Amino acid sequence: MRIGQGFDAHRFADPDSGTPLWLAGLEWPGAGPGIEGDSDGDVAAHALIDALLAAAGLGDIGSLFGVGADAHGAGMHGAAMLRETVDVLRGAGFVPVSASVAVIGNRPKIGPRRSEASHALGEAVGCPVSVTATTTDRMGFTGRGEGVAAVASALVERVR
Amino acid sequence: MRIGQGFDAHRFADPDSGTPLWLAGLEWPGAGPGIEGDSDGDVAAHALIDALLAAAGLGDIGSLFGVGADAHGAGMHGAAMLRETVDVLRGAGFVPVSASVAVIGNRPKIGPRRSEASHALGEAVGCPVSVTATTTDRMGFTGRGEGVAAVASALVERVR
Amino acid sequence: MRIGQGFDAHRFADPDSGTPLWLAGLEWPGAGPGIEGDSDGDVAAHALIDALLAAAGLGDIGSLFGVGADAHGAGMHGAAMLRETVDVLRGAGFVPVSASVAVIGNRPKIGPRRSEASHALGEAVGCPVSVTATTTDRMGFTGRGEGVAAVASALVERVR
Ligand SMILES: [Zn+2]
Ligand SMILES: [Zn+2]
Ligand SMILES: [Zn+2]
Repeated sequence: MRIGQGFDAHRFADPDSGTPLWLAGLEWPGAGPGIEGDSDGDVAAHALIDALLAAAGLGDIGSLFGVGADAHGAGMHGAAMLRETVDVLRGAGFVPVSASVAVIGNRPKIGPRRSEASHALGEAVGCPVSVTATTTDRMGFTGRGEGVAAVASALVERVR
Repeated sequence: MRIGQGFDAHRFADPDSGTPLWLAGLEWPGAGPGIEGDSDGDVAAHALIDALLAAAGLGDIGSLFGVGADAHGAGMHGAAMLRETVDVLRGAGFVPVSASVAVIGNRPKIGPRRSEASHALGEAVGCPVSVTATTTDRMGFTGRGEGVAAVASALVERVR
Repeated sequence: MRIGQGFDAHRFADPDSGTPLWLAGLEWPGAGPGIEGDSDGDVAAHALIDALLAAAGLGDIGSLFGVGADAHGAGMHGAAMLRETVDVLRGAGFVPVSASVAVIGNRPKIGPRRSEASHALGEAVGCPVSVTATTTDRMGFTGRGEGVAAVASALVERVR
């Protein structure tokens, strides 16, 4: 059994940019502007990807998907990136056992769709994935609504 | 074996409010104003609750205790909330195996009472619970003393 | 199997101070000013130390290495502190199983030397140690380049 830790943070996009809001494997229509990023800015998925890769000792999201508009991960949604991550893990002889991500920010309100998010992420990863959500009580960059952050951990097992 | 990740942050209360300071399952008399929150503002307990619920796939502190002055958790101390959380886990067939929380803030100074805090939290959870403490070197909202944060992880096992 | 969570953050040193930059068990020449701290300011190593001590229920970095210029840990490099931490764990009947640290900051760019860092930390701890790295997208104290933070988790096993 091996453990991995991931963290990610991104800025909210300009309200005029029309960027759709994707987080925790779901689109959140009506919950305000989306998140900046080469991909869809899904900090929950990205933190989980780092946690899974770290647990298996296979680098991090930057080494797998690249950085910038020409990167392999450019434009990809979090769930697709998670699926590709798990393919890499399996190819190296690891399977995800359990994963969990805490989303830190003012919006979207995760609560009403937590099960749906957990299901979407769990289906992509192939093991139970939990999602919790909290604010920072109007403090710091997440509290001022400048962006959103996520911290994740994962357990993986070597199967061969 | 399943893993859960939790995070929480709350603002310190107004010095004139007379709010007692509760953190990591203990009261800290003489360590300055307490923490805002519907309950006692114990970010260490709250982050642990999220980690435990996440590990068992049972939602988060908001779904179990509610939000606001009328919430089920209103006025509850961290240790009592942890005990109720573990009851919910046991009812769903899970037992806590191990948990750990890192408290991030300027005060109270956890060190001299770390064993006591660890004992109080561990008794509530029914497994070893560790407490570490660090500052952010005068940076950010925790470094400026606006509030306190905590990041926690937990392992749980399904027993039936 | 027991889990531990660690967190650390330090300020970058004054550019005129000539402080060398140490992080994740390595020196980073040419990557700008170093990190303040009684020891070498290696937040990745320090967060891992807290995670390992927490997992074993043996206190935290402050209780083991002290605080201030006269402290036992004063001037020590992260890898040496990790080795001493693991000696303490072994003495108490625990062995590290797996550990992981997420570094949060603008510099140094970890990517090109991630394997080297992972190897240096893993050799000190005696189990696989993964290193991921992310920025906070120009937000907060890490995004403004005031300092660097790290969040870590660890699994340990009781062997006697
Ligand atoms: Zn990202
Ligand atoms: Zn709370
Ligand atoms: Zn430190």
